[in-house]
Amino acid sequence: MDKNISELIGDSRLTNRIVTAETAASWIKDGMTLGLSGFTRAGDAKAVPFALIEKAKQQRLKVNVYTGASLGSDVDKMMAEAGIINKRLPFQADSVMRKKINEGEILFIDQHLSHTAELVRSDVLNPIDFAIVEAISITKDGMIIPSTSVGNSSIFAKKARHVIVELNTAQPKELKGLHDIYEVGKQGEREPIPLTKVDDRIGTTGIPIDNDKIIGIVLTNQLDSPSTIVPPDAETAVMANHLINFLRKEVAAGRLDENLAPLQAGIGSVANAVLHGLLNSEFSNLEVYSEVLQDAVFDLIDAGKVRFASGCSITLSQDKMKQVYSNLDAYRDKLILRPQEISNHPEIVRRLGLISINTALEADIYGNINSTHVRGTNMMNGIGGSGDFARNARLTIFVTKSVAKNGAISSIVPFVSHVDHTEHDVDVLVTEYGYADLRGLAPIERAPLIIENCAHPDYRPHLREYFKEALKRGGQTPHVLEKAFSWYINYEKYGTMMEPKYQLQTQE
Amino acid sequence: MDKNISELIGDSRLTNRIVTAETAASWIKDGMTLGLSGFTRAGDAKAVPFALIEKAKQQRLKVNVYTGASLGSDVDKMMAEAGIINKRLPFQADSVMRKKINEGEILFIDQHLSHTAELVRSDVLNPIDFAIVEAISITKDGMIIPSTSVGNSSIFAKKARHVIVELNTAQPKELKGLHDIYEVGKQGEREPIPLTKVDDRIGTTGIPIDNDKIIGIVLTNQLDSPSTIVPPDAETAVMANHLINFLRKEVAAGRLDENLAPLQAGIGSVANAVLHGLLNSEFSNLEVYSEVLQDAVFDLIDAGKVRFASGCSITLSQDKMKQVYSNLDAYRDKLILRPQEISNHPEIVRRLGLISINTALEADIYGNINSTHVRGTNMMNGIGGSGDFARNARLTIFVTKSVAKNGAISSIVPFVSHVDHTEHDVDVLVTEYGYADLRGLAPIERAPLIIENCAHPDYRPHLREYFKEALKRGGQTPHVLEKAFSWYINYEKYGTMMEPKYQLQTQE
Repeated sequence: MDKNISELIGDSRLTNRIVTAETAASWIKDGMTLGLSGFTRAGDAKAVPFALIEKAKQQRLKVNVYTGASLGSDVDKMMAEAGIINKRLPFQADSVMRKKINEGEILFIDQHLSHTAELVRSDVLNPIDFAIVEAISITKDGMIIPSTSVGNSSIFAKKARHVIVELNTAQPKELKGLHDIYEVGKQGEREPIPLTKVDDRIGTTGIPIDNDKIIGIVLTNQLDSPSTIVPPDAETAVMANHLINFLRKEVAAGRLDENLAPLQAGIGSVANAVLHGLLNSEFSNLEVYSEVLQDAVFDLIDAGKVRFASGCSITLSQDKMKQVYSNLDAYRDKLILRPQEISNHPEIVRRLGLISINTALEADIYGNINSTHVRGTNMMNGIGGSGDFARNARLTIFVTKSVAKNGAISSIVPFVSHVDHTEHDVDVLVTEYGYADLRGLAPIERAPLIIENCAHPDYRPHLREYFKEALKRGGQTPHVLEKAFSWYINYEKYGTMMEPKYQLQTQE
Repeated sequence: MDKNISELIGDSRLTNRIVTAETAASWIKDGMTLGLSGFTRAGDAKAVPFALIEKAKQQRLKVNVYTGASLGSDVDKMMAEAGIINKRLPFQADSVMRKKINEGEILFIDQHLSHTAELVRSDVLNPIDFAIVEAISITKDGMIIPSTSVGNSSIFAKKARHVIVELNTAQPKELKGLHDIYEVGKQGEREPIPLTKVDDRIGTTGIPIDNDKIIGIVLTNQLDSPSTIVPPDAETAVMANHLINFLRKEVAAGRLDENLAPLQAGIGSVANAVLHGLLNSEFSNLEVYSEVLQDAVFDLIDAGKVRFASGCSITLSQDKMKQVYSNLDAYRDKLILRPQEISNHPEIVRRLGLISINTALEADIYGNINSTHVRGTNMMNGIGGSGDFARNARLTIFVTKSVAKNGAISSIVPFVSHVDHTEHDVDVLVTEYGYADLRGLAPIERAPLIIENCAHPDYRPHLREYFKEALKRGGQTPHVLEKAFSWYINYEKYGTMMEPKYQLQTQE
């Protein structure tokens, strides 16, 4: 065997468990449940899933698939196309899989990303037959060293009946030492999580495992698929400015320190733009405590603006990947990768008092947020970690462009068609027109602020009319229920949410 | 001065600060913000608010009022009637106040009960001019000993410019020693909350205070207003049975121990009935980690079923109050009263893995819960602590009778008219017809379960029809948006949610 490979497997008894992906796939039977490593295109199992797809061409094969979050390397896409998935959780972001979910062909459970580990640990979900975990090495003392994400890999490996390791030689070996694996233990028997600063190390550098549980090792040699995040455009740059101005006001009011508070930013172009906006701001010595560490986080580290970043995965563009992975040692004392249960844990989010920035699909005039469902029905990606952060952060900020589809869709509506974040959990709403600071306001105070500061000017007259009519009926949260969803009906009818009379006004 | 009174005031410099309620009220000016003690009718300030109402007859007086939760002793009612409240948070349960809120006369902020302290601590809300806190004594070393609730009293006393103590000689002196006051400190600078068992004592027995901040002491002598919880009826008893059967199954499956897990039960007749149901069950050595400790908790302690109960207030019926307060020493090693920030803290709720039982106003076929708004518009009471518990508990259970108003209103609807708890946070739904265990299910799996197990039989055909029509349109969470709220329109039109064609069927 290749000497380089045997060096990656600390326990020599394991070297004769190296198998092909096809052999590993042959162990997986119809009806089984798999726990796959992978979080937002980073550190996903890359070989066995494809062997499964091949296998399914010969025989019936439907499995349940649990992951950290979305998978890259076209794994979600190909598995969806092959029709091998029965149930999928807790998050995905692939267009083919999305289609199958919305056609009812794949059963999708849209879960808070910190919850999956609890449900697996306490045997609420179907037990996991195989954990398939990408690693950069296996140590002699029984630890799997993950690659570019931790995600749910540690709880999957702990609870699965068997573990298959995908040993990926393309991932940088220097990742070793960046991980911090902490197991919270059973509810009712656990201690406080001893993390009080973003850079606290509280666990082990690998996933502790009884090496006998590793029944197969599959060799791979393929980098993660690069991030598809688009760079900031004029609109997202403006939104970033609004948000940074809000943060400045908080500093001026003495509610935030000069170096703000640990930042969490959801994946997406707007959150990415906000982080980019910080590059040119006066803020420095910043900390990041987030899920995915994207390009912008590394840009901020490179610029000396971020002093430390904690996440559960690294998802980079092709260029940034090259730069960072050829120079990982420079980031060694500025980075930690944790299980997503810890990166998203309410206990930590509240203790540290994060500033949490996530993307909304739509918001209503009272501040309720839809993060997931297009027109209340079709799943986009999933709630992800936004709920873990939103309820517990120091500042919960949602960002969205005021309109979509060239203005045919308003992101500010009378009543959101699906609620992922309730009015109780939303502090600030930002669009390219401005921000609405909703803290300490009753619903009837919030609506005018959201309409005038955040909605697109073309939709404001219609929103004002709705609110005025609703106000006449009274109530804590005034609504005209028979018209609450009319904008979605308009869209079906006219191809725009705007009613004909307002369409005319806008054209004039 | 009465020797008994001077014994209650440990610091002799304070005895000359005893004033009448009228004098204390004279310090409070129009536009000020008050923090009042009181949580679900327990331990509320009982004299100064009434003096304020009198004062308002002579001069303009509008104040903002923050509390722990609902006040008893008609304080909320009388303040609302007097029109002296500008803004009120975080919870209320009085019919007069409710009316004024829904008329837009009082600005009400409906808040997670663990959040208020964070917002006050971090200066997000208007600063508090006066904290008015009921106490049973003030110690020499500078501690206010609260009475039957802690609620938000400790953070109010800490952050207010001035403190007025209402020294209530009618409350049992033996309450001293039952409280455990812990201050979490600023976000970003705090340590883990060192509580890992329901009976851990982590703080002080009183609210630490610089005695110079106490500018007035008002003497009162009046018990809390008794609880108005109705005893279990046939329906709530049946619901309790369903729930207990579910818990039995969890024990049989090995997911719960024989002594279950610490219980949280929201205020309300159903939750109360569930606790009563446990009286006659095989379960013993139970623990309670809740907000309000109601009659049923003490009945369970008396019966030797509950070994320890932690809460933030004690709210009892007249008879139970007599029994418990004349014999408090017997409960001394079985009770702790904490700040509501600690009784409801996500960190603790998740660590202990609570079984959380709260009341829903309505639920939809996918498991979203409305806890607050009648027909999406009119505030009932508020979300209370349900959101603190629901997202973090081991088991999140919502209970509701399947219909209200003699069947004119179904509590199971196609689309809830307001969302307080999202589908991501709801594990089990219980009505008098049965329970739906929603864990690990995709939305299209949940709907048939909720319809067939929980909805009233008269409404099932209509719900089935809605779901069937929605399914044809597809989507992760199928809906027919133009009909989603039609049941509320029916109710306005026909006085019942049921459409005429189903009304006929039901009558046949």
